[in-house]
Amino acid sequence: MSLLVVGSIALDTVKTPFGEGREVLGGSATYFSVAASYFADRVCLVGVVGGDFPPKHIQLFLQHNIDIEGLHKEDEGLTFRWKGEYNYDLNEAVTLDTHLNVFSSFNPSLPEAYRECQYVFLANIDPELQHQVLDQVKQPRLTACDTMNYWIQGKPQALKKTLERVDILIINDGETRQLAEEANIVRAAKKILSWGPRILIVKRGEYGALMFSANNIFSAPGFPLEYIFDPTGAGDSFAGGFMGYLANVDTIDETNIRRAIIFGSTMASFCVEDFSLNRLSNLTYPEIEKRYKAFKALTHFEDI
Amino acid sequence: MSLLVVGSIALDTVKTPFGEGREVLGGSATYFSVAASYFADRVCLVGVVGGDFPPKHIQLFLQHNIDIEGLHKEDEGLTFRWKGEYNYDLNEAVTLDTHLNVFSSFNPSLPEAYRECQYVFLANIDPELQHQVLDQVKQPRLTACDTMNYWIQGKPQALKKTLERVDILIINDGETRQLAEEANIVRAAKKILSWGPRILIVKRGEYGALMFSANNIFSAPGFPLEYIFDPTGAGDSFAGGFMGYLANVDTIDETNIRRAIIFGSTMASFCVEDFSLNRLSNLTYPEIEKRYKAFKALTHFEDI
Repeated sequence: MSLLVVGSIALDTVKTPFGEGREVLGGSATYFSVAASYFADRVCLVGVVGGDFPPKHIQLFLQHNIDIEGLHKEDEGLTFRWKGEYNYDLNEAVTLDTHLNVFSSFNPSLPEAYRECQYVFLANIDPELQHQVLDQVKQPRLTACDTMNYWIQGKPQALKKTLERVDILIINDGETRQLAEEANIVRAAKKILSWGPRILIVKRGEYGALMFSANNIFSAPGFPLEYIFDPTGAGDSFAGGFMGYLANVDTIDETNIRRAIIFGSTMASFCVEDFSLNRLSNLTYPEIEKRYKAFKALTHFEDI
Repeated sequence: MSLLVVGSIALDTVKTPFGEGREVLGGSATYFSVAASYFADRVCLVGVVGGDFPPKHIQLFLQHNIDIEGLHKEDEGLTFRWKGEYNYDLNEAVTLDTHLNVFSSFNPSLPEAYRECQYVFLANIDPELQHQVLDQVKQPRLTACDTMNYWIQGKPQALKKTLERVDILIINDGETRQLAEEANIVRAAKKILSWGPRILIVKRGEYGALMFSANNIFSAPGFPLEYIFDPTGAGDSFAGGFMGYLANVDTIDETNIRRAIIFGSTMASFCVEDFSLNRLSNLTYPEIEKRYKAFKALTHFEDI
């Protein structure tokens, strides 16, 4: 099935204790689409870049069979830039600088062919733009979205409207607590589920992810890695693996949702092994399967 | 099999956002022995209390068939007191006050019958006292210990000697990083395993536990609870369930170690549901089994 993603495409300058990447490829839609490309038949990308966007990055999308009909290029403008830093903790980025550039007037307009997409991911963008995208897709089977503290504080009503319209919300634990105004994660999840989404996935960095639905909780660990170089994009790679797998199997039940979460965790674990998309864009499917099985070995225990 | 525990027995005054317990029963050996009592044939307790120790607490040990021949009572002294507070995070206690009292001259001397114990847990006490206990047990099949930042900083050499002599180290993630002087938990674990123990269990509060051995890593989640009243004793309840289960099955292999970690996590999850040992001391084995199965439901996913 076709999978639509709408989000940012960026040039990141990232510093971690292990090195620095300058003006490297980044952005939520970038990480998502490359991660999803290993699973979904077709990934349809909607985003905007400036005239300065290096052609080699376009090549990367094409190499991954990502449909870029919806990738708008504003020749007169500059690509969105983000500059951030991580300390040894690696769980939270400190944003040093943001230049929205062409992203500030981003107005997601879907090519006709994209409107048929049955799987939809709204990356972390203005909730009003998220509505605009949902208005354009015809009959999605599954919709998911991300958001961040900036929108939780700045546009709570618009965000609530997004939540009424999506099936799945994928956010981190701090955002979960902030959105629900509730410190306990289980009670926070219940509150958020009452607002619309039938599934909430809480990303917890190195601690993995928790999935909440009406009757189930699923806990997936973070993959214990000896070397983590750059956590940028891990959450979007997770979402890409998750939605990509579901678009591929096209059967949304508890079994596949859990598998999808492990595939999401798998893609996130590869993402952080190198800067930018250096690792994520050079995977083979057997490598992905091998890590999935490693997650199984990591968590399995016998019944009593 | 018989399981020996040596540690503190305390009267705690604990404040959490959800209430306060004043001079309630606490201490590492207390939580450990009650948790272990649901599994092990016989739990042998070594500790010291003062003349002020309420007889009802002695009754509690006896109700759980805990052998208190090694529980020394110093009639002239006062029982160890700890006063602490938790904020909404609940992952770390702030110690407000400590009165070691009779615990300051604690000199663990094992009754003759205890020396035959085959399973041994050295709770968080001076590593020199840990050596003293190991010198007294005859032929233990499995030994495990806990420690804390105070000993890591204050008695690193004595602690290293303990580590050379035990099979399993059970500490929290902050202590793991501090002990290994290494921020990455996987590399920290490798370093610590090279010093002696063949298994390291890293407790991560609400995020569960990670087990490291030469060839395996096992990740157990924290149980997602809607109400957590008091995290005091969770780590020792974990250790009690873990060692208690192994002493019960008396076969130490990967399968049982993983099961033991889930039983440990189970006991920790009950512990935090109420103040002091209010929940932990009132369990039935079917309740324990039910939560074990809930851990299975929480973590299970299908192979691909």
